[in-house]
Amino acid sequence: MHFKKIINNTLLRLIIVLGFSLTAFNIHAFNGGGSSKFSMPKHDFANGSVNNQPITNMDDLMFRQPNPNVNVNGIGIFVYDGMFSLDALGPYQVFKTAALNAFFIAKKKGPVTMSNGITINVDKSIDDVSKLDVLLIPGGAGGTAMQTIDPEVLAWIKQIDQTSIFTTSVCTGAWILGAAGLLEGKDASTHWYRANEMLTKFGADYTGKRWTRDGKYWTSAGVTAGLDMSLALVNHLFGKEYTQAVMLDMEYDPQPPVKGGTPKKSAPIIAQLMQDMYDFFLINFVNCPLGTPGACLFN
Amino acid sequence: MHFKKIINNTLLRLIIVLGFSLTAFNIHAFNGGGSSKFSMPKHDFANGSVNNQPITNMDDLMFRQPNPNVNVNGIGIFVYDGMFSLDALGPYQVFKTAALNAFFIAKKKGPVTMSNGITINVDKSIDDVSKLDVLLIPGGAGGTAMQTIDPEVLAWIKQIDQTSIFTTSVCTGAWILGAAGLLEGKDASTHWYRANEMLTKFGADYTGKRWTRDGKYWTSAGVTAGLDMSLALVNHLFGKEYTQAVMLDMEYDPQPPVKGGTPKKSAPIIAQLMQDMYDFFLINFVNCPLGTPGACLFN
Repeated sequence: MHFKKIINNTLLRLIIVLGFSLTAFNIHAFNGGGSSKFSMPKHDFANGSVNNQPITNMDDLMFRQPNPNVNVNGIGIFVYDGMFSLDALGPYQVFKTAALNAFFIAKKKGPVTMSNGITINVDKSIDDVSKLDVLLIPGGAGGTAMQTIDPEVLAWIKQIDQTSIFTTSVCTGAWILGAAGLLEGKDASTHWYRANEMLTKFGADYTGKRWTRDGKYWTSAGVTAGLDMSLALVNHLFGKEYTQAVMLDMEYDPQPPVKGGTPKKSAPIIAQLMQDMYDFFLINFVNCPLGTPGACLFN
Repeated sequence: MHFKKIINNTLLRLIIVLGFSLTAFNIHAFNGGGSSKFSMPKHDFANGSVNNQPITNMDDLMFRQPNPNVNVNGIGIFVYDGMFSLDALGPYQVFKTAALNAFFIAKKKGPVTMSNGITINVDKSIDDVSKLDVLLIPGGAGGTAMQTIDPEVLAWIKQIDQTSIFTTSVCTGAWILGAAGLLEGKDASTHWYRANEMLTKFGADYTGKRWTRDGKYWTSAGVTAGLDMSLALVNHLFGKEYTQAVMLDMEYDPQPPVKGGTPKKSAPIIAQLMQDMYDFFLINFVNCPLGTPGACLFN
């Protein structure tokens, strides 16, 4: 088989749009080129699902792709010390594979160290960002509890939410949305750990679903559920075939080695032990009334 | 509910072992303490699955946990520019949650930038590491092709493999294991993209499975399959209940929003378009004979 020097323009556009994950490859064919000369079809980012007809040809697929001219402000993922890495990095990978403009934002620019020790450098602070199409808040344990009592963080989230198209959380990130007052009267998902007690504090109803959509608020269950929710968002925006393209890139056909992943699907003693373990770290936070000064959490 | 100042010793050990993901939390109870005074039961890391009896009490669970004294050399994840982030960060999260000693190794110390732009700092080089219990090689596209023609990287992998307990890959990481000559005559998994052609070059048989175990060689399908394979490894070592504890922590009960994730489960036109897109970047590499100098890949 020979290298396809001549390919059709539609495929080339697909390559440019979907090819983000391949950019480390040294493509001589692109030298002197650039994506600016290819005009993208318009897409209504806000409404999503504008066209649920199956895709039958390349031009249809192109139409489903994001339009950078609409998606100006992009998808901001708020990151903080102590967060669970996959809560943010899973959705980030999904959004980047879908050629969406996803990036990280921290309270201050600089290194952010996740609970498992991974450190990333963040070049946008909350002072730099006043508007986002999509806000995503990842979860964690103690680090997350700290965000729920940080007035600057909560004020910024409320500000972003005023004009966001979607406000979303993964895992216990819902605690932060809740502390910002954004889940009042809403259905929501969160990590299973004392989910009912926590969401009740925020005036929200725990659905127990993998992810929950209530108006513009999308919330997911713990950690890995962020993958499913972000794919669901891609599906909502661009339809099934485009989502399948992203899932193929990530070969997302999950097959857990054993039954589990929720308390009900696990051996009762394991679910109890895990809850006891989390209690050791978090029960004071769970029992603190909403809006309590930080001292309450740690005594 | 009051904070459990008095908890039993077994639970405390569980907290110490499994509590890695919570370390950002400021635990006053641990001040002046430390895990050194808690002795861990012995565990045979090499054999795995030594006891498949169900766990019925806390002491049983403790027995399944990793013993840091056996797991001296840990789990080394080889990282490189252009790799797919989740290939490495997914398994890393699984291993850390399972309290295993996982860490990153690069050809040279310093920043490694993944295909989606995430940069991590790596503090171990291949010169620092001559032995590993488990080696894991993540995949990618062009960046991965570069590794397959890097004699220093391949020599290091062969050296590590001589004494490893498990040699593993995620996604197109199998191309690197293959280029090192380690998959000759083996069954293997890899990313679906031209998987048969690629594995045939290395003398391996593509199984099409989510992950494949052939002796000490474990290989997985693309990107997200690394989560399933690393959980399967935890399951192999420590049994179902311990794996369920890890899966509960990550709430790993996946529910993709649409059917897909493999070419067969996707719309035919999408699978074809994705293959065409990869071909644009990689077909020359696919067609290069094994061991070809780098120039062949990029012309």
